[in-house]
Amino acid sequence: MIKKILIANRGEIAVRIIRTCKDMGIKTVAIYSTADEDALHVKHADEAYCIGPPPSTESYLKYSNIITVADYANVNAIHPGAGFLAEDAQFAEICEAHQIKFIGPSITDIATMGDKVRARETVAKAGLKLVPGSQGGRRKNSKKGTVDTAEDAAQIGIKAVAGGGGRGIRIAENQPSLLNLFHTAKAEGEAAFGNGDVYIEKWIEEARHIEVQILADTHGNVVHLGERECSIQRKQQKLLEEAPAASIPPKLRNEICKAAAKAAKAIGYTNAGTIEFVVDKDENYYFLEMNTRIQVEHTVTESITGIDLIKEQIRLAMGDQLGYNQSDVQIQGHAIECRINAEDPANQFMPSPGLVTAYHPPGGIGIRVDGYLYTGYTVPSHYDSLVAKLIATGRDREEAIARLKRALSEFEIEGIKTTIPLFQTILNDERFRGATIFTNFLET
Amino acid sequence: MIKKILIANRGEIAVRIIRTCKDMGIKTVAIYSTADEDALHVKHADEAYCIGPPPSTESYLKYSNIITVADYANVNAIHPGAGFLAEDAQFAEICEAHQIKFIGPSITDIATMGDKVRARETVAKAGLKLVPGSQGGRRKNSKKGTVDTAEDAAQIGIKAVAGGGGRGIRIAENQPSLLNLFHTAKAEGEAAFGNGDVYIEKWIEEARHIEVQILADTHGNVVHLGERECSIQRKQQKLLEEAPAASIPPKLRNEICKAAAKAAKAIGYTNAGTIEFVVDKDENYYFLEMNTRIQVEHTVTESITGIDLIKEQIRLAMGDQLGYNQSDVQIQGHAIECRINAEDPANQFMPSPGLVTAYHPPGGIGIRVDGYLYTGYTVPSHYDSLVAKLIATGRDREEAIARLKRALSEFEIEGIKTTIPLFQTILNDERFRGATIFTNFLET
Repeated sequence: MIKKILIANRGEIAVRIIRTCKDMGIKTVAIYSTADEDALHVKHADEAYCIGPPPSTESYLKYSNIITVADYANVNAIHPGAGFLAEDAQFAEICEAHQIKFIGPSITDIATMGDKVRARETVAKAGLKLVPGSQGGRRKNSKKGTVDTAEDAAQIGIKAVAGGGGRGIRIAENQPSLLNLFHTAKAEGEAAFGNGDVYIEKWIEEARHIEVQILADTHGNVVHLGERECSIQRKQQKLLEEAPAASIPPKLRNEICKAAAKAAKAIGYTNAGTIEFVVDKDENYYFLEMNTRIQVEHTVTESITGIDLIKEQIRLAMGDQLGYNQSDVQIQGHAIECRINAEDPANQFMPSPGLVTAYHPPGGIGIRVDGYLYTGYTVPSHYDSLVAKLIATGRDREEAIARLKRALSEFEIEGIKTTIPLFQTILNDERFRGATIFTNFLET
Repeated sequence: MIKKILIANRGEIAVRIIRTCKDMGIKTVAIYSTADEDALHVKHADEAYCIGPPPSTESYLKYSNIITVADYANVNAIHPGAGFLAEDAQFAEICEAHQIKFIGPSITDIATMGDKVRARETVAKAGLKLVPGSQGGRRKNSKKGTVDTAEDAAQIGIKAVAGGGGRGIRIAENQPSLLNLFHTAKAEGEAAFGNGDVYIEKWIEEARHIEVQILADTHGNVVHLGERECSIQRKQQKLLEEAPAASIPPKLRNEICKAAAKAAKAIGYTNAGTIEFVVDKDENYYFLEMNTRIQVEHTVTESITGIDLIKEQIRLAMGDQLGYNQSDVQIQGHAIECRINAEDPANQFMPSPGLVTAYHPPGGIGIRVDGYLYTGYTVPSHYDSLVAKLIATGRDREEAIARLKRALSEFEIEGIKTTIPLFQTILNDERFRGATIFTNFLET
């Protein structure tokens, strides 16, 4: 029975998790860096403890400080949020050693899916098709994937094995470029994650990023909660997500969702997870990666299913049964999320931290705001730039877009620059309105 | 085709209507009194015109000023909101004379339902049961109802004929009290509405206020959108509303809804309307009144049906077909609304206008806020005290209550007193949680 949770994160996701804990009557413990003393998650939690200064390696990533607080505050569980330690198998292991439930899947699943090569091997066995490339194969005398297998590929992408969320991807246009980029990616991976292994896969043009939300209990029950379309990205970072995916036909959506749920079951996966796919122009879909955490864009799935995914994560971590099956999951309406970042879209998306002199979020029908700003708050410069998520839900895509446009026009954030103007442009774009969107949308 | 709408109202309902107009691509014209220069509805509308000083008789109720603006701004339609001119048949007539569509039902329906005696006669013919009392009957040599018919009633209520929303109700405990109160009510009705007619009905103890949302097009199609429970009232003014009504069994709810839709069809009613019922402890339900306007609490119905009622009002006023039938209307989940008033619940609900020094609305899953406050805004003293509506939706009543409690605890309105603490008390009350609520809940 989980009665008190430490939220090992900051920003909007920490506020998000605290909200559901309150809904469930669970006590919350916030942790914060010295740069986050005035942060909203600190104000909303029942208790809050400072765990060190920025950068994150000295606080939000510092196992010992976090575990010390968890022990001191006598929590039953830690929710890692998204980012930081959310996919850190070693941290999950330390939690378990301290008899603290890590809210997420098993340590094995985190470790497997965190290693892109092992992940590919695992899901291939579970029936999912992989993007042509390293195939999760191993080079002789090596434990990891190799570039050798796809020398004849015309256009190839190299991705750091331990990288997540699009970081570390390099696109090679030709063979000499491939070899150069191979070494760059290897060096970057070593510097960033202490792991220089890389794998290669075919770069798919006119690609759509489609991902499927999975929920699985520890009793063998697995459901999917439909798919999300996340093709609107900038430098492989998602900006706008929607559910259902309007860019692909319902039959294909259904097929992908079923395949994802089947694979999750075959793997024996538990808790919440997301299987990401790339869909090419011929409607082939290939496994991209599996995220073993709650995702920023989980909100659009919540909006069309009515299911609180954080609540489900906590319930499932307690060993609860799902309590419903696939046919009970009803998809209703359409939802779109904009990630509002403190960045200046007119100036190469330069980060724009600083004092928020006025903050007035939009309201009304179909509007949800998950953020952590308030008037008088100073956005620190040390962390990622996501300051608010704006989610609009409508009976159909057109209604969701109309509400989103209206809400963006109402949203008042003064003192810092944000990506709000960018979304206003995107929502008026003909290609977006027609749902002919690919991952290269923003560049083209 | 309605392309431009004048919103003949202020406060949250004006903001509410402007939002849907934006969603529909319809231009908006705001009107405002000199006390409302800084109001949010003025900022959100495409155009805004001052129509006079407070009190409302010099501005928001002044036909000529409003029609002048409507003509000048070249609008196709006027939305009266709730309150002010929303149920004023004469104003609706003037609009039609100026070729401006009044967004609401027919002038006849407004006039009929605005006269409580004629309303009772009409709905009785349409098959609805009336509270025992005047029965909509007429005294000899009089055009209106009489107190004579219920001299033997043990406990009797007297209501002003033209009064709405609970104003003018007087409860007589015995016969001498009845005669006294009869004269008081008559005098009050004359002073307030220029109409001293009264009617009487049996006062129902342990009464529940249940109302049914109706939508009807001009092509003969009528649907109900389920019922709302509005028993939590103070001095006959609703404070908290929910849908579905948890206080009565599903079978009864269904029966009341069907009866309401049938009556609306029999009357030939068009546009949005609400039929209000009182339900006694033996599960008898009696017609109370019909509101021919959008109601403050329409939001809870929107939350469980996904249908934008303002959008439907506008569509239906244009002569559109409903486009769906009863079986298409799906009720999903549970929604509860709190009316946050600028009043001090610790001090006899004294109005508390003034400068809002900090405003931070709650957010997150299941939360909708419809308000008109912002940091630095001064709530004027001239108008009703409703400043925001907080609506929580959950998969069930328990989840909705939990979210509502959480959102109330997050809601920050500084500088003025509000009814937020009252709702925190109500939501923790055992009777409320068990849904054993009657219209006398707040007194007992």
